[in-house]
Amino acid sequence: MDGASPVARKEADVAVTVSAQAAAHVQETDIPYSIACSVPSSPSGLHLGACASIVRMATEVSLDTHHHGATAEAPQLLSQTGHPTLTISTEEPWRDRRFDHLKTFSSGSRVERQVSTLHPPAEIEVADSKISEEEEETGDGDGDSENEVPSVDRYLSALQGPELETLRATEVSTLPDCETWPFLLRFPVSAFGMCLGVSSQAMLWKSLQSEPSMAFLHVSPAVNQALWWVSVALTAFVSSVYLLKAVFYFEVVRREFCNPIRVNFFFAPWVACLFLVNGLPRPVAAIHDSHVVWYVLMTPILLLDLKIYGQWMSGGGRRLSKVANPTSHLAIVGNFVGALLGALVGLHEAPLFFFAVGLAHYVVLFVTLYQWLDTNDVRLPKELHPVFFLFVAVPSVASMAWARLCGEFGFGAKIPYFISLFLFVSLVVRINLFFRGVRFSLAWWAYTFPMTSVAIATTMYASSVNSLVSRALAIGLAGIASVTVTGVLVTTMYHAFVRKDLFPNDVSIAIMQRLNKPKHAVAQLARCIL
Amino acid sequence: MDGASPVARKEADVAVTVSAQAAAHVQETDIPYSIACSVPSSPSGLHLGACASIVRMATEVSLDTHHHGATAEAPQLLSQTGHPTLTISTEEPWRDRRFDHLKTFSSGSRVERQVSTLHPPAEIEVADSKISEEEEETGDGDGDSENEVPSVDRYLSALQGPELETLRATEVSTLPDCETWPFLLRFPVSAFGMCLGVSSQAMLWKSLQSEPSMAFLHVSPAVNQALWWVSVALTAFVSSVYLLKAVFYFEVVRREFCNPIRVNFFFAPWVACLFLVNGLPRPVAAIHDSHVVWYVLMTPILLLDLKIYGQWMSGGGRRLSKVANPTSHLAIVGNFVGALLGALVGLHEAPLFFFAVGLAHYVVLFVTLYQWLDTNDVRLPKELHPVFFLFVAVPSVASMAWARLCGEFGFGAKIPYFISLFLFVSLVVRINLFFRGVRFSLAWWAYTFPMTSVAIATTMYASSVNSLVSRALAIGLAGIASVTVTGVLVTTMYHAFVRKDLFPNDVSIAIMQRLNKPKHAVAQLARCIL
Amino acid sequence: MDGASPVARKEADVAVTVSAQAAAHVQETDIPYSIACSVPSSPSGLHLGACASIVRMATEVSLDTHHHGATAEAPQLLSQTGHPTLTISTEEPWRDRRFDHLKTFSSGSRVERQVSTLHPPAEIEVADSKISEEEEETGDGDGDSENEVPSVDRYLSALQGPELETLRATEVSTLPDCETWPFLLRFPVSAFGMCLGVSSQAMLWKSLQSEPSMAFLHVSPAVNQALWWVSVALTAFVSSVYLLKAVFYFEVVRREFCNPIRVNFFFAPWVACLFLVNGLPRPVAAIHDSHVVWYVLMTPILLLDLKIYGQWMSGGGRRLSKVANPTSHLAIVGNFVGALLGALVGLHEAPLFFFAVGLAHYVVLFVTLYQWLDTNDVRLPKELHPVFFLFVAVPSVASMAWARLCGEFGFGAKIPYFISLFLFVSLVVRINLFFRGVRFSLAWWAYTFPMTSVAIATTMYASSVNSLVSRALAIGLAGIASVTVTGVLVTTMYHAFVRKDLFPNDVSIAIMQRLNKPKHAVAQLARCIL
Repeated sequence: MDGASPVARKEADVAVTVSAQAAAHVQETDIPYSIACSVPSSPSGLHLGACASIVRMATEVSLDTHHHGATAEAPQLLSQTGHPTLTISTEEPWRDRRFDHLKTFSSGSRVERQVSTLHPPAEIEVADSKISEEEEETGDGDGDSENEVPSVDRYLSALQGPELETLRATEVSTLPDCETWPFLLRFPVSAFGMCLGVSSQAMLWKSLQSEPSMAFLHVSPAVNQALWWVSVALTAFVSSVYLLKAVFYFEVVRREFCNPIRVNFFFAPWVACLFLVNGLPRPVAAIHDSHVVWYVLMTPILLLDLKIYGQWMSGGGRRLSKVANPTSHLAIVGNFVGALLGALVGLHEAPLFFFAVGLAHYVVLFVTLYQWLDTNDVRLPKELHPVFFLFVAVPSVASMAWARLCGEFGFGAKIPYFISLFLFVSLVVRINLFFRGVRFSLAWWAYTFPMTSVAIATTMYASSVNSLVSRALAIGLAGIASVTVTGVLVTTMYHAFVRKDLFPNDVSIAIMQRLNKPKHAVAQLARCIL
Repeated sequence: MDGASPVARKEADVAVTVSAQAAAHVQETDIPYSIACSVPSSPSGLHLGACASIVRMATEVSLDTHHHGATAEAPQLLSQTGHPTLTISTEEPWRDRRFDHLKTFSSGSRVERQVSTLHPPAEIEVADSKISEEEEETGDGDGDSENEVPSVDRYLSALQGPELETLRATEVSTLPDCETWPFLLRFPVSAFGMCLGVSSQAMLWKSLQSEPSMAFLHVSPAVNQALWWVSVALTAFVSSVYLLKAVFYFEVVRREFCNPIRVNFFFAPWVACLFLVNGLPRPVAAIHDSHVVWYVLMTPILLLDLKIYGQWMSGGGRRLSKVANPTSHLAIVGNFVGALLGALVGLHEAPLFFFAVGLAHYVVLFVTLYQWLDTNDVRLPKELHPVFFLFVAVPSVASMAWARLCGEFGFGAKIPYFISLFLFVSLVVRINLFFRGVRFSLAWWAYTFPMTSVAIATTMYASSVNSLVSRALAIGLAGIASVTVTGVLVTTMYHAFVRKDLFPNDVSIAIMQRLNKPKHAVAQLARCIL
Repeated sequence: MDGASPVARKEADVAVTVSAQAAAHVQETDIPYSIACSVPSSPSGLHLGACASIVRMATEVSLDTHHHGATAEAPQLLSQTGHPTLTISTEEPWRDRRFDHLKTFSSGSRVERQVSTLHPPAEIEVADSKISEEEEETGDGDGDSENEVPSVDRYLSALQGPELETLRATEVSTLPDCETWPFLLRFPVSAFGMCLGVSSQAMLWKSLQSEPSMAFLHVSPAVNQALWWVSVALTAFVSSVYLLKAVFYFEVVRREFCNPIRVNFFFAPWVACLFLVNGLPRPVAAIHDSHVVWYVLMTPILLLDLKIYGQWMSGGGRRLSKVANPTSHLAIVGNFVGALLGALVGLHEAPLFFFAVGLAHYVVLFVTLYQWLDTNDVRLPKELHPVFFLFVAVPSVASMAWARLCGEFGFGAKIPYFISLFLFVSLVVRINLFFRGVRFSLAWWAYTFPMTSVAIATTMYASSVNSLVSRALAIGLAGIASVTVTGVLVTTMYHAFVRKDLFPNDVSIAIMQRLNKPKHAVAQLARCIL
C-alpha cells in the first residue's frame, strides 16, 4: 500500500459506512433521496472506489475512480433528490483508519472503539443498537459470539461459492473492495493447504522409496529429503505469516474461525505437521521423544475436535445438517493422520482413541454429505468442484491408520481403502465436469492432498497384496498425484508472480452483521399469518 | 364405582368441551365476554373443577370449587352476554368425577361413555365428530390410534421442553391444573429412571470390587450388596406403583406410551432388571436357570424393539426424522445391556442377535441425532440439558457387551469405549451450560446412569490395559458417577419430602385432542394460495 | 377388450381426455381461443387419442361419450370462443403414428421430428419452447438430460404409488391411456424381478441340498436343476424381449432409466445372472473360466454403481435425500451378490472391493431410508407395501458374502444376518398391513427374492451354528420363501393368462414434460413475498 493520501482513505471509510446504510435504507423504505459525499476539492488521491460500490447500488451511478475530475461530478449526480450534505472531517490525515477495527493493537482498536461508541452520532447509535439486537436474536447460542463476529447465518447468507469465497450481489463489503488490502488481511488460513499438499508429497516419496512393493523403482531418498525440507520451509513460512496475522489482526482470525468453511482449515496446520513427521527422511520411531512430539501435535487437534464436534452435536446454529460441506472432511482427517503417526511411534491406546473418534464422526459426516439434505445451507454449485476430492482423503488415511494399528493390511484396512479407491474413480470419470468455471484459489492445495493420500495407501496395499495390478495402480496413482501437485504448484506460481492475484481481497472477513432483507419479509409474513 | 347420576357426568363432559372451545375463542377474537354454561336445572352433582380451569383463563375468575356459595357468584360474572345461569348441583359432593374418563374401572369408563355418546346434545356431537375427523386425518397410520389418544403431532404441538413436560402457553389442560391430581396420575413412567440409576450403581460397585484392575482398592462387597438390595426394593416399589397405575388408569399409561418422549422410558423397567441381574452380589453365571431369566427379561425388550423400530421404519407420524431425541437412546441401550448379560450367562447367538439389532439402529439414531435435522419436531432448548448424557450410555454399554461376547477387550470393544469417552469429555467441558434454567425432574435419574456405564466400562478397560492412566480414569469416573448419583438422590429426597413436588401434575397426559390454531391458519393459507 | 364398437371407445377416449384438460384449463386461465377437432364422419381408423391429448389442454368441452351424435356437437360447443378449426388429415390411415416418437427406427423418429419441428404451427412452437425452457431451468444438472426425457422432478410430481406406477389425477398421459399399447411399450424393466425371484429359488434349493446342516432333508438335486433351467429360460426370454424393446424403443428405455424407481431395476438383470451362476447345479468353482464370467458380470454393475452413486453424491436433482426409496436396495445388493460369487470362484481382492463399496453405500442408504426425511420426494403410502421386504435383502446377502470372504460364518457375518432376521420379523408381524389396497405388479417378484435370500443365509448360519432352532428356522424360512414365490407365480399366471392384465399400460413412460401448476403458484407467491 502506498503511504499517500490517508485523508482520502478515511473519507472513503466514512463513505463506505454511510453508503452501506444508505443502500440498506433504499431497500427498506423506497424513499428516493440519496447521500451526497461532499468531497474536499484538494486532489489528494481520493479512493472513490469504495464509495462507488455503494453509490452504484443506491443510484446506479458509476464513477470513474481514477479520474480526479469525476469527484466534482459525483455530488451533482447525487444531489438531484434533495441536497443533504455530509461534511467529512479531515483530522489526522496521516493514518489509514479503515482497517483499525480489525487490528489487535491500534489506537482505533477495541478499547478506543468502546469509548467512542459512548458518544456516537445519535442516529447511527440507534441504527447500530437495532442491528445488534437483531444479531443477538439469531445468535447461535454457542456462547462465544460477540457483537463483532457475524453469526453463521450471516456467513451463509452473505457469501457464496463452494469455499464461500464470493460476496453475493446483494451484499456490501465493509472494507474497500476495489483496492488491495494489507497483505496480512488477505492471507487466509486456507494457505495451510499448501503445506498439506507438499508435506503429503514428501510422505508419498518416502513410501515409494521405503515400501517393499515399490523397491523395484529404486527411488532415491533425495526426493523425499528435498520435498521434506521444502515442506518444512513452507510450513514455517506460512505459520509465521499466519501467526503475525493472529497477533496483529486477531479479530480477522476470529472471523475466519467463525466462518463455517474456513474453520475446518484450522485443522490444516496440525495435520501438515503430522504429515511432516510422517514424511521424515528417517524412520519415525527413531525420533528422540517421538511420543512427546505426538502428544504435542495431537493436543490442538483434540481441542478442535471438542469444539467443532460439540458445535455439531449441540444443535445450535452450527449444527451438522446446516454446516456440513466437503471441507468438513478436514475436521475429521486429522484424527486418522494422528492415529497413523501414533501407531508408527509405538503408541497403542491413544491413537486408537483418535481413530474411534474419527470413525464415529466420519460415519455421521459421510452419511450427511451423501444425503445432500435440503436443510444444508452450504450449497455447492451444480458443476463438480475439486473440493469433492476431499471425499477420498479420510478413508484412504483411515485405511493406513488401521493397517498400522493392526500391524497388517487386513480386511479392516482394505475396506476403507477400497471405498476411497471407488470414490476416487467415481470423481475421475467426472473429471470433465471439474474445471468448468471454477476459479483457482489457495484452497486447491487442500484438494490435492487426498490424491496423494490414496497413492500412499496404494503403496501400502501393494506391499500387502503384491501383484502386477496393485503395483501398477500404485505407480499410476502416485504419478497422478505428483502431476496434479506440480500443476497446482505451477498455477500457484503463475498467480503469485505473474498475475499477482494469489491473495485476492478476502471478502469473507468483511461481511456486515445486519440480516438480509428476505428473512425479515418472511418473518413478517409469518407473523401476519400465524 | 357407583352407577348413579349419569346425567351429571354427561353435563360435566359438556362443560369441558364447551369451555375448551370458549378458551380457544377468547384467544382468537379477544372479545371480553365470558362463557355461559347453560346447565339443566336438575341438581345432579356437577363438578366445576374442570370448568373452572377454563373460566379462569377466560375471565381471570377463580372459583372456589369446594365452597358451594361460590356457585351463586359465577353466573353473575358470566351472564353479561345473555343471562344463562350456571346452576351447580351439589349432589354427591364426596366423589371426584373429573378423572373418571381416565379410569379403567369406573361407571364413567369406556362402555358407558360409548353408550352416552349415542345421544349427546346435537351441537356438541357435531363439534366432536369434526374434531375426530381432523384427528383421523392427522393419524399416524400406525393402526393403533383411537379417538381418545392424541396423535404424536398433538404431543409435539401441545407440549414443550426437553422432556415434553410443560404445556405450551396456548394450550389448555383437560384436567384441573391448579390442584394436585391423584398420586397415580402423577406417577410417570420416567420414575423407572431411579431404578436405572441405583441398579447401575450396584453394578459399578460390583465391578470395582471384582475387576482385577481395581483389586488394589479393596472395595468391600458390602457396598454392592447394600446398593443391590436398595435397587431391588426401589424397583419393586416403582414397579408395583406403576402396575397399580396400569390397572386403575390404563388410559393414562396408554397416553404415556403414545408420548414420543415417554415411550422410550417403557424400556427402563426391563433395563433396570437387567442391570439388577448384572449387579447381583454373586457371579451371574452361578444363578440357577439364568438362561430362563434372560429370556424372560429379553422378551418384552424384543417386543418393544419390534414396535418402536417398526414405527420408525414404516414412515408414519412416528418416523425417526420426526421423533428422534436423546431419550431415544433408552430404546437402544436395552439391546446392549441384554447382550452383555446374555454373554455373562453363557449364551452366544441370542445376545449377538440383540447386539446386531442394537448396532444397526444405533448407527441410524446416532447419525440422526448428530445431524439435528430441521424436520425433527422434538426440539431441544438452546442450553444443553442432562438429557445429552444419554449419548454416552449406548457406546459404553456396547463396548462391554462386545468385550464379553468376544471374551476380550479388543479393538471392537475399545472403539465404542473411546467414542463414549470422547462424548463424555465433550459434555463435561460444557458443564457450565448444563444447569441454566433446567428444572429438576425424575427423568434426571435416567441421565445419570450413562456416567455409571462409562465408569463400569472404564474398569473393564483398565483390566485389559492396566496402566496408571487407565486406573486413575476408572477411579475418577467412578467417583464422578457416584457423586452425581448421590447428588441426584439428595435432590430427589429434597423434592420428595421437603418441597413435596417430586411428582407434579403430569400435564402430558392431559392434553386435548383438537388441533391447535396455527396449523389451521397455515392450512387455510395453503388452500388459498394453491 | 371386446371387439365391438371401436368408434364408441375412441370417443370415450376423447371425452376423458378433453374433460381432464378442461379441468386443467380452469386453473390455468383465460386463453379465449380453442381448438376444434372437426372429426371426419367416416370411421377410417383415425386415432383421435393423440389429437385429443392436445384438445384437452385447450378446451373446456365435455363430450357425451356414449352418444354418437355428440361428435357433431363438438365443433359447435368449441366454436363459441372463436372458430379456429383444426382439420385432421386422414392420410395413411393404416399406420399408427402415436408411438412413433418413441421408436428408434421409424419414419417419425428423431430425424424427421427434428425436421418437422422446424415448421410447426407457430402457436404450438411457442408453447413448446416455453416448456423446454422451464424444463432446462429445473434440469438436474447431471449433464445427460435431453429435452425429450422428463426431469426427475417431473417423474416425482406426475406419478404416485410406491412404484411410481400410477399417474396423478392432475396429470395427462401423452399416449392414449384407455387403449392397450404395443407389447414392447408395456414390458417394463421390472420384469427382471421374475428372474431374481426364480433364480434365487434355484440357489436356495442348491443350498438346501448342499449345506451340511440341511443334509438330513435329503433334498433331491433335481429340484435345483429344474429351477435352474427354468430360471435360465425365463432370464433368456425376459432379456430377449427387453433387448428388443431397447432396440426398437430406445427412447422408452431411456425414460425408464431416468425414472428414479425404475433405474434401480437396471441392476436386476446382472444380479439375476449372478444368482444363476451361484445356483448352478454343480460347484461354482468348477466352472471353466469362472473368473472371466465374474468379471464380465461385474463390469456393468461397476458402471451402474459409478453412475447411480455419482448421481447421489454430486447433489443434483437425483441426490439421495430426494430419490431414496426401498427399491434403491436393488442398487446396492448387486455388490454383495457379486462379492459372494467372487469369493466362491476363488477371488479375494476384487470381491472385497465390491463388498466395501456396497457397505459404504448401504450404510448411507439404510440411515436415509430409516430417517424418512421430509425432503424425500418418493413418498410411500401409509399402508406397508411388499417393497419393504427389500430391506431384508442386503444384510442377508452381505452376511453370506462376508462369510465366504472370511471362510467362516463369524461375528462379521452373523451381525448382518441377525439384522436381516430382525427386519424380516419386524415386517412379518405387520403382515396384516401388507395387502390392503396394494395392486399386484411384476415388481412383486423383486420383493420376494429377499425372503429367499434370508432363507439361504439361514441355511449357511445353520451349518455354522448347528442347533435344532437354527435348522427349524432354516426350514421355516425356506418354506415361507418357496410358498411366497409359488403364490406370486400363481398370481402372475392368473394375471397373465386369465385376466390378461399382467402388462398394463406403462404410464410412467408417457408423462409430459411441462411442470405442474402448483409449483408455479408457489414460485409466484415466493416472488411476491421475497
